[in-house]
Amino acid sequence: MIIDCHGHYTTAPRALEDWRNRQIAGLKDPAAAPWASELVISDDELRASIETNQLAKMTERGSDLTIFSPRASFMAHHIGNFETSATWAAICNELCYRVSRLFPDHFIGAAMLPQSPGVDPATCIAELERCVNEYGFVAINLNPDPSGGHWRSPPLSDRYWYPIYEKMVEYDIPAMIHVSTSCNACFHTTGAHYLNADTTAFMQCLTADLFHDFPTLRFVIPHGGGAVPYHWGRFRGLAQELKKPLLAEHLLRNIFFDTCVYHQPGIDLLTKVIPVDNVLFASEMIGAVRGIDPETGHYFDDTKRYIDAAALSAGDRHKIYEGNARRVYPRLDAALRAKGR
Amino acid sequence: MIIDCHGHYTTAPRALEDWRNRQIAGLKDPAAAPWASELVISDDELRASIETNQLAKMTERGSDLTIFSPRASFMAHHIGNFETSATWAAICNELCYRVSRLFPDHFIGAAMLPQSPGVDPATCIAELERCVNEYGFVAINLNPDPSGGHWRSPPLSDRYWYPIYEKMVEYDIPAMIHVSTSCNACFHTTGAHYLNADTTAFMQCLTADLFHDFPTLRFVIPHGGGAVPYHWGRFRGLAQELKKPLLAEHLLRNIFFDTCVYHQPGIDLLTKVIPVDNVLFASEMIGAVRGIDPETGHYFDDTKRYIDAAALSAGDRHKIYEGNARRVYPRLDAALRAKGR
Repeated sequence: MIIDCHGHYTTAPRALEDWRNRQIAGLKDPAAAPWASELVISDDELRASIETNQLAKMTERGSDLTIFSPRASFMAHHIGNFETSATWAAICNELCYRVSRLFPDHFIGAAMLPQSPGVDPATCIAELERCVNEYGFVAINLNPDPSGGHWRSPPLSDRYWYPIYEKMVEYDIPAMIHVSTSCNACFHTTGAHYLNADTTAFMQCLTADLFHDFPTLRFVIPHGGGAVPYHWGRFRGLAQELKKPLLAEHLLRNIFFDTCVYHQPGIDLLTKVIPVDNVLFASEMIGAVRGIDPETGHYFDDTKRYIDAAALSAGDRHKIYEGNARRVYPRLDAALRAKGR
Repeated sequence: MIIDCHGHYTTAPRALEDWRNRQIAGLKDPAAAPWASELVISDDELRASIETNQLAKMTERGSDLTIFSPRASFMAHHIGNFETSATWAAICNELCYRVSRLFPDHFIGAAMLPQSPGVDPATCIAELERCVNEYGFVAINLNPDPSGGHWRSPPLSDRYWYPIYEKMVEYDIPAMIHVSTSCNACFHTTGAHYLNADTTAFMQCLTADLFHDFPTLRFVIPHGGGAVPYHWGRFRGLAQELKKPLLAEHLLRNIFFDTCVYHQPGIDLLTKVIPVDNVLFASEMIGAVRGIDPETGHYFDDTKRYIDAAALSAGDRHKIYEGNARRVYPRLDAALRAKGR
């Protein structure tokens, strides 16, 4: 089986975006604010939005199951206050849940959290619990910068975030560390902010001893780990300067990288440098880079082609495609086993 | 000849740091502020600080000439106001100039600019002119984020920066895009902020048409281009989505990457993915990563070993070591030719 651990609902029916725009307008003009119940999307609309997009490409490319979360760039935690994010996260998570019910063999949910700048992360617990207990979600997306490119929250190693980690450990679910839209003009969202956040998150963990406090806490760093594998020597050297243990011991029991790297040389480096147990297949399809690479004739984000072409043993490839995901997302493994998969 | 295009004076005599600390103390207590003339460092002290450090390692490793600029993390443009930075930049640049006079075969200067958050970059021109005209410097370091990790300046493509670019074009000097210390707790200076800035700068150029306005403007992006070469497919794909020309045409006439990547697989990727004409040898020695790699027994930042071991023709290796630097830094080439080198 091939599990894609990083997919977002980027193709939701237009009504979702329209509702969100009304919600945003309602921040200035409360009379314009919509009720959650005013958003009506039928199962047929959901089905169509998936069948013609993600599911079609999964079938074409040969992946089986996607860990599916709300559109990352639309989380936009910087907009409004906690109530704004709470309502929006609830709506977006519910849609992902409905997709997972409509296509139970192909999608399983990961939760967006109702984060809001400066608001205690503990306020996210209720939505997290609902997503795990009622929706069967197997992970969360945690935004280390709800300000959207201004980086005003404490580092991930700060006790500020511990309420989330305690719940993650209790539920045995990992977090993908994933920012949202940049509202800082310096940072292009998908070309700079996403990659910077990946590198930043890794380094926040490197300088700290977070995994002493939470030995079973697991982070998936998306987009191939940002700049980290390319600069693995730098990070090994910095850890040494900081008198930290070797990275394998210090971080790699708890941190994993996905394969959202959109060319063969990048995947070759990732799979060469990072231990195979720490690499999880992902494509972030349909996401930031939707075109066809003129150098190959294939979609940039068809990352399965790169993994298939990488110098990996069959056993290692199986770990990347399936084995590691089952280990890092135990609730996914349990859900699959319950169906005999 | 082997030219290292990225070295900072990280080993300046302690008196420099003491003076800076007094300058910073003087921001709160003007009575504590030192005069520039109170900083006294003898030629012997300068000589010793170089001979036992950078020059010893250059000799040992086999590089000949370093483009030498003030310590990047000490620029700290966020401290004080324009006057603070102006005095500090003048002092630091003068020391690099003196080093270049003491070791004229081995060091040539690149200027730190007296940037200050929110201050018109045109205020940097006088120091830039002095460094080029009086000190024979061949380049500048341009900090895209003088706020130190808060990213409050406009993107590099904004007309805000044009006064600097006009002078660079007039003098035919490149800028290395290099941030300084992060005062944002989210970003470790050398493990996150530096790499993020490299990626950010590249993407700022990708989304804009800066090099339409300045066809001969040249940026060197340090630290192997941050995350860019590792994610080259992503950047090619994003350029395509944005209807930009191919990157070779859109950016690679103007943007160059150094080789400050501290392990073999990273250098292998860099030299495979980025056209050889756009790669310039550098080590940033003595810099962020000073230790010995236990996996190789050699210094992490001994990047010449990686270039020597990379799959490159002799001609391509010569470009990386010397030819490209002579082209990207014409004033360096002129200075060398004037000495028959």
